Amino acid sequence: MSVETKLKAAVLGASGYTGAETVRLLAGHPRVDAIAATGHSLAGKQLSEIFPHLAGTADLPVVKAEDVDWSDVDVAFGCLPHGTSQDLIETLPDHVRVVDLSADYRLRDADLYAETYGRAHLNPARTAAVKYGLPEWRGAALSGETLVACPGCYPTASLLALLPIIEVIDADSVIIDAKSGVSGAGRGLKEGNLFSEAAEGLHAYGVGTHRHAPEIEQELNLQAGRTDIGVTFTPHLIPMTRGELVTCHVRGDLDQIQSALAAKYANAPFVSVLPLGSPAPDTRHVRGTNNCRIAVYPDRVKGRVVVIAVIDNLVKGSSGQAIQNLNLMMDWDETLGLAGLQALFP
Amino acid sequence: MSVETKLKAAVLGASGYTGAETVRLLAGHPRVDAIAATGHSLAGKQLSEIFPHLAGTADLPVVKAEDVDWSDVDVAFGCLPHGTSQDLIETLPDHVRVVDLSADYRLRDADLYAETYGRAHLNPARTAAVKYGLPEWRGAALSGETLVACPGCYPTASLLALLPIIEVIDADSVIIDAKSGVSGAGRGLKEGNLFSEAAEGLHAYGVGTHRHAPEIEQELNLQAGRTDIGVTFTPHLIPMTRGELVTCHVRGDLDQIQSALAAKYANAPFVSVLPLGSPAPDTRHVRGTNNCRIAVYPDRVKGRVVVIAVIDNLVKGSSGQAIQNLNLMMDWDETLGLAGLQALFP
Amino acid sequence: MSVETKLKAAVLGASGYTGAETVRLLAGHPRVDAIAATGHSLAGKQLSEIFPHLAGTADLPVVKAEDVDWSDVDVAFGCLPHGTSQDLIETLPDHVRVVDLSADYRLRDADLYAETYGRAHLNPARTAAVKYGLPEWRGAALSGETLVACPGCYPTASLLALLPIIEVIDADSVIIDAKSGVSGAGRGLKEGNLFSEAAEGLHAYGVGTHRHAPEIEQELNLQAGRTDIGVTFTPHLIPMTRGELVTCHVRGDLDQIQSALAAKYANAPFVSVLPLGSPAPDTRHVRGTNNCRIAVYPDRVKGRVVVIAVIDNLVKGSSGQAIQNLNLMMDWDETLGLAGLQALFP
Amino acid sequence: MSVETKLKAAVLGASGYTGAETVRLLAGHPRVDAIAATGHSLAGKQLSEIFPHLAGTADLPVVKAEDVDWSDVDVAFGCLPHGTSQDLIETLPDHVRVVDLSADYRLRDADLYAETYGRAHLNPARTAAVKYGLPEWRGAALSGETLVACPGCYPTASLLALLPIIEVIDADSVIIDAKSGVSGAGRGLKEGNLFSEAAEGLHAYGVGTHRHAPEIEQELNLQAGRTDIGVTFTPHLIPMTRGELVTCHVRGDLDQIQSALAAKYANAPFVSVLPLGSPAPDTRHVRGTNNCRIAVYPDRVKGRVVVIAVIDNLVKGSSGQAIQNLNLMMDWDETLGLAGLQALFP
Repeated sequence: MSVETKLKAAVLGASGYTGAETVRLLAGHPRVDAIAATGHSLAGKQLSEIFPHLAGTADLPVVKAEDVDWSDVDVAFGCLPHGTSQDLIETLPDHVRVVDLSADYRLRDADLYAETYGRAHLNPARTAAVKYGLPEWRGAALSGETLVACPGCYPTASLLALLPIIEVIDADSVIIDAKSGVSGAGRGLKEGNLFSEAAEGLHAYGVGTHRHAPEIEQELNLQAGRTDIGVTFTPHLIPMTRGELVTCHVRGDLDQIQSALAAKYANAPFVSVLPLGSPAPDTRHVRGTNNCRIAVYPDRVKGRVVVIAVIDNLVKGSSGQAIQNLNLMMDWDETLGLAGLQALFP
Repeated sequence: MSVETKLKAAVLGASGYTGAETVRLLAGHPRVDAIAATGHSLAGKQLSEIFPHLAGTADLPVVKAEDVDWSDVDVAFGCLPHGTSQDLIETLPDHVRVVDLSADYRLRDADLYAETYGRAHLNPARTAAVKYGLPEWRGAALSGETLVACPGCYPTASLLALLPIIEVIDADSVIIDAKSGVSGAGRGLKEGNLFSEAAEGLHAYGVGTHRHAPEIEQELNLQAGRTDIGVTFTPHLIPMTRGELVTCHVRGDLDQIQSALAAKYANAPFVSVLPLGSPAPDTRHVRGTNNCRIAVYPDRVKGRVVVIAVIDNLVKGSSGQAIQNLNLMMDWDETLGLAGLQALFP
Repeated sequence: MSVETKLKAAVLGASGYTGAETVRLLAGHPRVDAIAATGHSLAGKQLSEIFPHLAGTADLPVVKAEDVDWSDVDVAFGCLPHGTSQDLIETLPDHVRVVDLSADYRLRDADLYAETYGRAHLNPARTAAVKYGLPEWRGAALSGETLVACPGCYPTASLLALLPIIEVIDADSVIIDAKSGVSGAGRGLKEGNLFSEAAEGLHAYGVGTHRHAPEIEQELNLQAGRTDIGVTFTPHLIPMTRGELVTCHVRGDLDQIQSALAAKYANAPFVSVLPLGSPAPDTRHVRGTNNCRIAVYPDRVKGRVVVIAVIDNLVKGSSGQAIQNLNLMMDWDETLGLAGLQALFP
Repeated sequence: MSVETKLKAAVLGASGYTGAETVRLLAGHPRVDAIAATGHSLAGKQLSEIFPHLAGTADLPVVKAEDVDWSDVDVAFGCLPHGTSQDLIETLPDHVRVVDLSADYRLRDADLYAETYGRAHLNPARTAAVKYGLPEWRGAALSGETLVACPGCYPTASLLALLPIIEVIDADSVIIDAKSGVSGAGRGLKEGNLFSEAAEGLHAYGVGTHRHAPEIEQELNLQAGRTDIGVTFTPHLIPMTRGELVTCHVRGDLDQIQSALAAKYANAPFVSVLPLGSPAPDTRHVRGTNNCRIAVYPDRVKGRVVVIAVIDNLVKGSSGQAIQNLNLMMDWDETLGLAGLQALFP
C-alpha cells in the first residue's frame, strides 16, 4: 500500500498514558499515520516535550481539539477520561471513525452508565448500539463500524478468561480478584499514586464498588443469555507500572474449562492458553505486547478451579486493543502494527 | 529488672531473614538477651558482616549450633528451614524452651506433615501436642509451654481474619487470595527472587498446592469443631520486600462479620478492626510492626463479604509473633519488646 | 522525669512527610509531647486519616496554625516549605523555641537566600544569626538557642563527609555526586514523582543549579576560613522511597582522610566511619535510623579519594536531626528519642 | 532478500540475560535467523521454558555447544561470562564469524587482561588485533571483520560521552560516576541481587577497582594518542532492572564540548545529543532501545562541565550493540533489526 492511502489518525487526549501509548504504537502501524494529537493544558508543546521517549519516532505537536482540521482525519482514538470523551466524540463529523478507549460507550444501558459514572449520557441511543470491542469476541461484528468502545483493562483480562467458560461453570460463583500496576490509574495527580506511597506495599481499592464490574457483568450476561449474573470484583494496586493479572475463582470442571478456553483461542493471534500444569502466567511475560496468557489450575477444594489471565494494561488492556479494533473495523489483518511487539524481559 | 535475671536466647539460623529479624527485635526486648546466633556456612563471621544493619545494635558472632554451650541458654528461636529445624530442636536439652518459626511443629498430624513437607516427622507424638502459637487465639494456653510453633505468615493473616467469623459465615465458602512480598521467600538463591525477575510484575504460585493451606484448614476446623472445612488458597508474589495482604472472599452477613471481628479483638494490642467504610488496609501501614489490620467490605454480590487483613510478614508473620509467643510462655506482658515498633511510612 | 515537665511541641505542616515523620519520632521521645499538628487544607481531619500508619501511636487533630493556643506550646518544629516557613515562624511568640526543617534560616546571607530561593527574607538580621544545626559540628553551640535551622538532607550527608577533611584535601577539588530517594521531593504532586514515572529508571536534576549547593559551600568555607570554595553538586533521583547517598570525589591522601574522619566521629553516637576496606555503605543499612555511615576508598587515579556517606533522608536528613537539635538546645542527651531506632532490613 | 540467504546465527550462552536478549532482538532482524542457542546446565530445555516471554516469537531448543553443527552456523554471538567465552570461541571453526559480548577480547594488552580478569588469555596475539566494536567509532573498520569485541555496558555509555571530547577537555580530569540497573549484574545468584536486598536502596561497588575502568582508559588513550590517561570510575547499583546512566564530571568549555558532541553524532542513528538547556536524560527514555542520549550542563564551578549519557544496558550496552556490530561487519545498514525498537514508557 502506498503512503498516500494511509489512514489519517487523530489521538484525542495525547498527554495521558493511553494517548501516548496509542501514538507510540501507531508509529509502527503500516497503514495508519498519526497526524494530530490533542491536548488542552499542554497544547502548544511537542508531544516529545511531555514524553521524551517518543522523540524521533512518534512526535507530534499537541493542539487543542477545536483546532484540528477534522476534514483531514479518518479516525480518532478517544484517550480522554470518561465523560470528557463523549463530550468531544459527539461533536466529531460523521466521516470520522472513532475508537474510544474511555468508558463512555461501553455500557449499553444509559441508566447504568449514569449510575456508574455519575453523569447522564449525552447519547443513550448511540451507546446502546455501539459495539463493545473485545476483538476475540466481536471480531466479525466490528467490520465497517464507525464507533467502537474498547473494554476497560480489567474487563479485557477478566472477559478473555471468563467468556469462553461462562456456560461450563457455575455462572453465579465467579470471584475475580484483580491486580493492576499503577499506570492503570493514569497520569492524574493523587498522593496515592506518588512513588513514595505506591512503592513497597499494596492495598485493595473500590472493593465492591469498582466501575469495571458492571461492564464485566454486561458481557457475561449477554454471552450466557441471562441478565442476573453478578460477579465479585476486587482490584488491588500493585507496586509495578505495567501489568494486570486477574485470578478468577470459579466452580466447574477443570478439563471442561481448559478445553473450552483452548478451543476458543486455538487460532487467536494474541491469546495463549497454557497447557495444564504450566507455571503460573506472569505479567512480565506480556509486558509491552498485545498478548494475553491464560492458565487453568485445579483448586485443592473439589469442584473449584482457578483461572488466571495476564495482560499489559496499556497495550492489550488499552492502546494495543484499540488498534486491533481499528484493524477489524477496516477489515485488515487484526495483527497489523501489533505483531512485532515483543515482551521486554527482564 | 536486673540484667542478671534476663532470659538468655539463642537464635538458630541467624543468617536468614527471620533469624536476623529475631536478633534485631530481641535487642529491644527488656527481659531477653540474645547471646548466641547459629549458622552453618557463615559460622566464624560476625552477624553484622552478613547484615550490616545490625552493626552497633544487635551484633553477635555466628557459631555452629554444635558449638553453643546450651547450659547457658534459656530459650531458642528456631529460624531454620522446615525439616532442618526439627533435626536440631530434637537434640536440644530439656531445659531449653523453644519458639519454632519453621513449619515443623505446626501440623498436629504427622502424616499430613509428611505428605505436605515430604519427609517423615522425627517426633510425631510431640508435634501432635505442641501449641500453635497464634497469640490472639492461644494466649492463655501458651503459659509455661516449652515448645511453641509459630504460624506461617499466610496462616497468621488468614486466621486472624477468619477464626473469629468461621461460625458466622458459610465455612465451606472460603476463598483466600493472598499476596506477599518477596522477603517471604527467604534468602535462598533462586532466579525468580532476583531483583530483575521479581520487580515490575507479579504472578501466582503454588496454586492449589501451597503448604500453608493445610495449616489454615487445621485451625479453622479445630475452631469450628469440624474436620472437613477446605479453603481455596492462592498466593501471589508481589514486587515489594515486606508485607502481606490476604483478601478473603466469604459468604455471610456483613454486620455479623464486622461485629464478630470487632468483639474478638476489642482488647488485642496488635490487631485492629477498622470501622465499616474505612479505606482498604495497606501493608505500608503495618510495615515494621507487629500489627495486623483487618477490614470488612460488602461485596456487590448479595450475601458475599470481603475481609482483608494486612501484616508485616517478617514481624507479625514471623519474628515479632515469635517474641509475642515467648512473652506469653513466660507470663509476661505480651507486648514486651514489641510495643514501641512504629510503622515506617513512606 | 514526670509527665508534667514534658516539653509541649507543635509540628507546623504535619501533612507533609517531614511533618508526619517528626510526629512519629516524637511519640518515642521521653521528654516531649506533641500536642498540636498544623495544616491548612487538611485542617479538621485527624492526622491518622492522612497517615494511617500513625493511628494508635502518634495521632493528633490537624488544626490551622492560627487556631493553635501558642501559650501552651514550648517548641515548634517547622515542617513547612521554604518561604512559607518563615512567614509563620516570624509570627510566633518569643517563648516558642523553633527547630526549622525548611531552608529559610540556613543561609546566613539574606541576599544569597533571595537569589537562591526567589524571595526576599523577612528577617535578614535573624537568619544571619541563626545556628545551623548540624549537631556533630554545632553541638555545644546549640545549647539554649531559640531558633535552630536544620540542614537540608543533601548538605547533611555531604557536610558530615567533607567538614572533617576540608583542611586535608584540595578544597577546590570537591565533586559531590548525590543520589536521593523520591521522598526527598516531598508530598507535592508532580508527574515526575508518580510511581509510573519515578520507578524503574533514574535521571539527574538541578545539575549545576540545585539549592543545596550554596548551603554546602557556606559551611565548608566557614570551616576552612575561606570564602571562595565552590563545589560541584549533581543530584540524581533514585527509584526508592527513603535513603540518600553522596559520593564525594576529592583529591587528598587516603590515610589522612580516613584518620580525620575517624578522629572526628570517634565518639559521635550517630556517625560511623567504616574501617578502610569495608564494603560500600548502603542506604538500606541506615533506613529508619538517625545514623550516618561514611567510608573512604582509594581511587585508581593516584591522589584521588572517594568518600561515601549514607543517611535516611527523612530521619538524619530531616526529622531525626531536628529532634537531635532540640535535645542539644535543651542540654539533654542528644540521643533522646533516637537511640532506639533500628534499621529495617530487608 | 530471500529467506534462503539469511545469515544463520548461534547464540552462545542463551540462558543469561544478554543471551536471551540477543535471541529476542534477532527475531526482528530481517537478514539473520537464530538457529541455535547453547547452554550447559539447561541444555535439553526449550529457551521459552527458561524465558517464557520468548514463547511464540523467539523460541529455540537449548543445546550444548559441543552438539552444535558448526558447519551450518555463519555467526556466533558470545554471551558467556568472561573467561568461559574465549574457551569456546577459540575452538570455533574459522568460517564462523564471532561477535563477542564478553570482556574476553576487549583489552588489547593480554597482560592487562590477565591482571584485570585473573586468568591468562588463551590467545594474546588475537586479542591484540580484535576490533573493539563501538560502532559510532569503529563503524568503517568493522567491515569484513571475523571477530569483534563488544564494549562493556559502562564503557559504551562512558565512551560515547567522552571520546568526542577527550581532546577538548582536560583529559586528566575525568570522573565518571556511574549508575546501573540490576540486570547489569546478570542472572548469577548472589544475595545482593535478590529483590529483597536490591530494592529500596543503593550502594556503590567496585570503587576504584571495577574492571570496566581499564577498558575505558584504553580507548580514551588510543583516541588522544596518549598512554597515561587515567579515569575515576565509581559505579552504583540502582534499584531498577534496565538502564544505565553515567555522570561525567570534566574540566573544559561548555560550548566546545557541546559542539564536539553534536558534530560527532549529527548523523548517528542511535545517539542523540540534546540541545543545551534540556531536561536531564532519563534511562526510561531509552528503555528497550539501542539509543544513547547525551546532554551537557554547565557546572556551578567555573571551568567544570557535566556530561550525562543514558543507555539501556541490555540493548545498546549489550545485545543491541552486538547486532549493530554484526550489521557493520556485513556491510549492512547498521540499523537493521534495531530501527523499530521503541522505548517503553511508562
